[in-house]
Amino acid sequence: MDKETIIYGKNAVIEALEAGNRTFNKILISNSAHSDTKIEKIKNLAKSQGIIFQFVNIQKLNQIEPEGRHQGVIAQIAPIKYIELEDFIEQNKNKLSSVVILDGVEDSHNVGAIIRSCVCSGVDGIILPSRHGVLINSTVEKTSAGAINHISIIKVNSLVSAVQKLKENNWWVIASDHHAKDNYYDVDYTDMNFALIMGAEHAGISKSLLKLSDFVIKIPMLTNFNSLNVSNATAIILFERCRQLLKTAKNAKR
Amino acid sequence: MDKETIIYGKNAVIEALEAGNRTFNKILISNSAHSDTKIEKIKNLAKSQGIIFQFVNIQKLNQIEPEGRHQGVIAQIAPIKYIELEDFIEQNKNKLSSVVILDGVEDSHNVGAIIRSCVCSGVDGIILPSRHGVLINSTVEKTSAGAINHISIIKVNSLVSAVQKLKENNWWVIASDHHAKDNYYDVDYTDMNFALIMGAEHAGISKSLLKLSDFVIKIPMLTNFNSLNVSNATAIILFERCRQLLKTAKNAKR
Repeated sequence: MDKETIIYGKNAVIEALEAGNRTFNKILISNSAHSDTKIEKIKNLAKSQGIIFQFVNIQKLNQIEPEGRHQGVIAQIAPIKYIELEDFIEQNKNKLSSVVILDGVEDSHNVGAIIRSCVCSGVDGIILPSRHGVLINSTVEKTSAGAINHISIIKVNSLVSAVQKLKENNWWVIASDHHAKDNYYDVDYTDMNFALIMGAEHAGISKSLLKLSDFVIKIPMLTNFNSLNVSNATAIILFERCRQLLKTAKNAKR
Repeated sequence: MDKETIIYGKNAVIEALEAGNRTFNKILISNSAHSDTKIEKIKNLAKSQGIIFQFVNIQKLNQIEPEGRHQGVIAQIAPIKYIELEDFIEQNKNKLSSVVILDGVEDSHNVGAIIRSCVCSGVDGIILPSRHGVLINSTVEKTSAGAINHISIIKVNSLVSAVQKLKENNWWVIASDHHAKDNYYDVDYTDMNFALIMGAEHAGISKSLLKLSDFVIKIPMLTNFNSLNVSNATAIILFERCRQLLKTAKNAKR
């Protein structure tokens, strides 16, 4: 495992400083960066938390992040801490909870966008398999726009065992597959511990996981062009759940 | 304007060949590519349409698409044809129609994913401003997974004029903005010509367009982390419309 990871870009660094749950080793700021309000904010947050920041030549930043998207700021931080599934289940046992399981999603941008949608829609955790698909890297960090600091990240060796464990603990497991008969909006999500499995970009969800699922749902289309991006498909299902939860809360208040 | 553009990757090339509305100059296939069913399909489709294909050294492909995501296949094609807004309105005047307007979206991956969601959810066209944000390029082509061949692409000099023209022609213009009061799921989309404006990744929608809009809607969240990826936000709104249309159609059948 990497001893250190980087996050880059002004907003990503601010977000991680504000979240306060990451261990910063050092923040590097380009000595040619214009000192705008965001750079000032980074410096002030770093000072108040006792984090070292250092002005460096821009070439040093370009060396660390060669694609030049760092906006003059790179933070060197300890890698995200993965948590154990058992601990996650234990921590969430006294409320209705939710988790998204990614079965081999390969594109870091997709994983980052999915984490954003998860956090916005109140999902508590995300489960990634250790041996296929993407784990958390600096592209995921960046595209998550800081969302990664607001969700539990669970890494497991076997998704099959993870799903079995969730089911034993009274979670409902829902798989998204475009061959399904049931529509995603016909499931009532308001009264369950919710685990959503999304498949890899090309391969979809593995058969063993489909077989274990309590529901298999599809997103019905208005055309026969049946090819949604996986992060968009995830957002559609999560926000249908969100819509139902908000409507129920509203009705309960009446 | 470019005289030629490329699409790369087996699926993207097959999709464009099958759509049949693009002008192919030539298809280049790596002479070291394993001849699998997809490559055979490309060869057969090309033959039946009288399109030249040529076996070349892989270095030649790497030169044209340096990031190495071509999977051994690159097609050189004429650029997408943009259509005029007036023609689009005319072509769609005898049915309830829909269009998505991107106000300066900058990331090609986002534009590609948005086009996929548009086509899946039955949106007829997409309007891009000529002077800010992304136009159609080969990354958009690739990330759209071929969806680009199934939708009208309209390029306009002024989004303000475009929105005014849509309104004059009995379209409802809906802007997505997280400061809005109304929720996206409280609008009835089933009986309108629907134009949805989505804003740039950081800047959002320009004030002049917000002012012109008939509705401004937000996507309510379950947390105060209010930062959805723009392609995910677009998918959430488009598929709520899709859900309403499918439910209405089902009820009408009863």
